[in-house]
Amino acid sequence: MKLVRFSQGGGAQRLGLTDGSAIAPLSNWGIDTGSMIDVIERWSELKAQLAEISEFTLPLDDVRLHAPIARPNKVLGIGLNYAEHAAEGGMQPPSEQMWFAKPATAVNGPFDDIKRPVVSDQLDYEVELVVIIGKRCRHLSREDAANAIFGYCVGNDVSVRDWQLKTSQVFLGKAFDGHAPFGPWITTADCFDPADAGIHSFVNDQQRQSSRTSRMVFDCAAQVALLSQVMTIEPGDVIFTGTPSGVGGLMNPPTWLVPGDVVRAEVEGLGYIQNTIVAEKIGEVVSQGQNG
Amino acid sequence: MKLVRFSQGGGAQRLGLTDGSAIAPLSNWGIDTGSMIDVIERWSELKAQLAEISEFTLPLDDVRLHAPIARPNKVLGIGLNYAEHAAEGGMQPPSEQMWFAKPATAVNGPFDDIKRPVVSDQLDYEVELVVIIGKRCRHLSREDAANAIFGYCVGNDVSVRDWQLKTSQVFLGKAFDGHAPFGPWITTADCFDPADAGIHSFVNDQQRQSSRTSRMVFDCAAQVALLSQVMTIEPGDVIFTGTPSGVGGLMNPPTWLVPGDVVRAEVEGLGYIQNTIVAEKIGEVVSQGQNG
Repeated sequence: MKLVRFSQGGGAQRLGLTDGSAIAPLSNWGIDTGSMIDVIERWSELKAQLAEISEFTLPLDDVRLHAPIARPNKVLGIGLNYAEHAAEGGMQPPSEQMWFAKPATAVNGPFDDIKRPVVSDQLDYEVELVVIIGKRCRHLSREDAANAIFGYCVGNDVSVRDWQLKTSQVFLGKAFDGHAPFGPWITTADCFDPADAGIHSFVNDQQRQSSRTSRMVFDCAAQVALLSQVMTIEPGDVIFTGTPSGVGGLMNPPTWLVPGDVVRAEVEGLGYIQNTIVAEKIGEVVSQGQNG
Repeated sequence: MKLVRFSQGGGAQRLGLTDGSAIAPLSNWGIDTGSMIDVIERWSELKAQLAEISEFTLPLDDVRLHAPIARPNKVLGIGLNYAEHAAEGGMQPPSEQMWFAKPATAVNGPFDDIKRPVVSDQLDYEVELVVIIGKRCRHLSREDAANAIFGYCVGNDVSVRDWQLKTSQVFLGKAFDGHAPFGPWITTADCFDPADAGIHSFVNDQQRQSSRTSRMVFDCAAQVALLSQVMTIEPGDVIFTGTPSGVGGLMNPPTWLVPGDVVRAEVEGLGYIQNTIVAEKIGEVVSQGQNG
């Protein structure tokens, strides 16, 4: 199944199921839900109801898609998780998983604008397979970790390279408002095999990154298992699982994203997200998060 | 004013005002609130009502105090922010602010137990002055940053040193469940001057850290101003502002916290928090966060 969060004409944000071209709003089927996190928490109860939905009446072209999870409890990212990306940065593939966090204020819609910050020109993209956690748990074996995954999305771990590299800690460069777009929907785990999917990014239709998830150093289950040794993972937690080589900052010469650029990130079987770069203007309304 | 979150006999978590020895539950004064974040967001409206509270009837000894903010939108920490702490680690004081995040699952009460993880023996303490953000904003000047601070707490940035140092990114070592106790209450910004307060920690009554907040490399306003260049800061965001020298891992020989140890962290004017170390047991109920 594919779960979407959407709105029409500036109206309220709603949840739905999609077949990839149209949406069945859950409320039309008498399914009363709160947030997407509530749906994930109640999945064992809701799954059978959602499986009966057979009519998709609202064309995707008529709605705005939002990030599937509005305010995740955690947004985490792993660094250097494709050997060829480590190599392009002059580094060995890591022997230990290297993790950082992104704040919930970085969440952004799959087709919304990405702001180039006023404080930097070094804006870069990173296509990633994104894992959505389904269960509240700790200390998972590899098998249990795989079963704790609710579904998958495509994400762009947008990065501001000079801020990322100012100190040993990458956090600030990964933390700008709206720099974690993901979507376009959550594909449930029973409908996607993360073992060997194509993963690609494009800037203005020029391909920049192209790899397969089989080239990850640490696969999705290994990532979730390790995280669960440290912290309680929770329904709706969002995990960015690493990016392959081909980022703009390591091109020769470095090629940063500029206003007007269109960045498309896609993972085979999960669809794509596409965001346009705009210049941030100081004094705009600050991020309110995406309620619901 | 001093704002507390508390419960009695395993009952619901409530909000109150304290004079440092007893509590005035807000509900007793006809003040209907949601979470502490709601109180902070409605502060301009609630402040006058709370200022009229004059009777503190419920002794602090009769309640359990909880972390003042149950589920912060962000918990952020700055590294190496006291020159003498950088020096004890063999490092220069930083020329740039170095930031990391802690997940909300790390939040813990001011007098609750701290678990020594099953996956490490290298458990360490870091007493810190904690800033609570009051306003949703970005791109603050130094003066506006000071005005965006709602209040202050005492915190312990509990750290698992081997996990902190396994890779270049400290995140995992800072991210264990319950490793961000703070409290005992929020002292509002009009009642505390962060410029030069004593800051101390003790393990089993032996003093381990002793400094003054005037020795910070980057003061509170400078920290908030810089963060606001990157991200929208939000009411109830929790900022750990750095620790002075004297951590256990840099003693000779390194001296880790063990089950039974009692760690007390205090900041002059804000009270203290005190937590007992216990051994984590796998299979215990996972962190549910602290509702409310």
